[in-house]
Amino acid sequence: MEQPRGEAAAPGITVAVIGTGLIGVGWAALMLARGLSVSAWDPSPGFAERLASQVEARRAALAPLGLVPNLSRLTAAATLEEAVYGAGFVQENAPDTDAAKRPLLATLDAATAQGVPIASSTSALLLSPLVADLPGAERFLLGHPINPADLMPLVEISGGERTSRATIDRAVAFYRSLGKRPVVLNREVAGHIAGRLAAALYREAVALVEDGIADAATVDEALSASMGLRWAATGVHLSYHLGGGPGGLAHYLDHLGPAQERRWASMRTPALTPDLKARLVSEVEAIAAGRSVAELEAERDARLAALLRALGAAEARHG
Amino acid sequence: MEQPRGEAAAPGITVAVIGTGLIGVGWAALMLARGLSVSAWDPSPGFAERLASQVEARRAALAPLGLVPNLSRLTAAATLEEAVYGAGFVQENAPDTDAAKRPLLATLDAATAQGVPIASSTSALLLSPLVADLPGAERFLLGHPINPADLMPLVEISGGERTSRATIDRAVAFYRSLGKRPVVLNREVAGHIAGRLAAALYREAVALVEDGIADAATVDEALSASMGLRWAATGVHLSYHLGGGPGGLAHYLDHLGPAQERRWASMRTPALTPDLKARLVSEVEAIAAGRSVAELEAERDARLAALLRALGAAEARHG
Repeated sequence: MEQPRGEAAAPGITVAVIGTGLIGVGWAALMLARGLSVSAWDPSPGFAERLASQVEARRAALAPLGLVPNLSRLTAAATLEEAVYGAGFVQENAPDTDAAKRPLLATLDAATAQGVPIASSTSALLLSPLVADLPGAERFLLGHPINPADLMPLVEISGGERTSRATIDRAVAFYRSLGKRPVVLNREVAGHIAGRLAAALYREAVALVEDGIADAATVDEALSASMGLRWAATGVHLSYHLGGGPGGLAHYLDHLGPAQERRWASMRTPALTPDLKARLVSEVEAIAAGRSVAELEAERDARLAALLRALGAAEARHG
Repeated sequence: MEQPRGEAAAPGITVAVIGTGLIGVGWAALMLARGLSVSAWDPSPGFAERLASQVEARRAALAPLGLVPNLSRLTAAATLEEAVYGAGFVQENAPDTDAAKRPLLATLDAATAQGVPIASSTSALLLSPLVADLPGAERFLLGHPINPADLMPLVEISGGERTSRATIDRAVAFYRSLGKRPVVLNREVAGHIAGRLAAALYREAVALVEDGIADAATVDEALSASMGLRWAATGVHLSYHLGGGPGGLAHYLDHLGPAQERRWASMRTPALTPDLKARLVSEVEAIAAGRSVAELEAERDARLAALLRALGAAEARHG
């Protein structure tokens, strides 16, 4: 193996990226573009070449933001222990199952120098039950990115009962140094915030299709041309504040709160039956119109980069 | 009154804007910026001066998009009948109650030249029951914008059983000529598409606050930094297609459909009690941090315009 690069050799710390699937690739690409060194490990054979080529493939997506991954700072470690040696931060991105994560996190705790934060990218699991009994429980945290992890600003952070405040603070500072917009949850919840909001909206989006109100393409266009833009500009609570006019949210809730409650009561939970799934797939294929997932991802990434540049410019003007 | 301007005097048609509250102002500002003439009417005394100054006040929001409302094409009519005389399209924006809309729509049907489409901006009501018995039922449609109506691209269109296909087609073409992104629903539903998606997400956003997972500011930041951007770039159905990797939505639903269903089952409907409303208002005031609704609107509008410019540029590149 090459020596993991430490602070002496690099302007930033070395981050151990453990697990180099889609999310690990995104983390590595961003960290390498932000001047950090990445020491990566994955148990699958041949991961080093795949990782290098997949990080390379993120150049086009990152270029509009002026971000260029520096592959000379990427090291593929031969073992997990080598990957975490000298690392100042560990980002774990293993398959999202208890069976995969639990032993891995225990091994990471044993192998990683004391006090170094170990963040898990888990989307589906609660972290605390996986690490509560580990000696280093205080340095574990949730550090959940949104796909594509190199472009999406959000990182959701939460800790368990044993996670130290210092760990959370260091993680917030670390993700900010990557240009991320980290948020800290008061406590863990399945799906965190963004995943729950997405699931809540998807529930209704599926119901609208099943009820024949509109096809998937129409629902998607309606969302992109309205609430997507709105929520990229202002969050949902603040949006309803503005929806109340000069009286703000208090006026909104007094006058339209009952209408919200009626709407909530009118919603239902679809069952993802084989028939409904087949219909959703067929209608999404109509949206794709022959474009592969990779082609659609490239179009999405170009739009995301344009939106991020625009928001950055708008913020700069508003100071 | 001044004469309503017809096609002879203007490059575009004259639109009758009936009701000049927040939504009517937005419609008028956009139409005047797109080269149309607007003949406006509102029953409230002094509306003409308020409308002119409020349209004028939209200049700053529209300027980044190169849109400049031409106030010389704005006519304040003395009566509803004068407003619709010579109009090629009617956009109704009265208060969103059955009591306000029902007699108004009947009067509009009687006063407006045969065959001229009459679109209602209603958010809360179903249109068909209000117009089903009118002689001109076939020319009524829902033409629902999203606030701010001059910036948000979406217009939701639906008709009742008696609405003609020609009416829908003309409305789609009309809104497209304004630079809008119209979508046509297969049938009416309370809240249309965007309002239902917003309510579905708001339900969970309120539950997250009530459950103490995070305060309103954190929920809003998490949404803006993730799903807002994502859904502005690609709709929700297509997003899950991309979430499935090379296998697309079929793979996603087979592998993570059960997780979605578990998440849906874990959600609940909050009750907007006085205590919860007070808490939401207090947490939104923390986000506002002393800024008035008008100041927050100006910031939102600047971000929206920047996002719209960015998307337009990204689309132009992708051709």
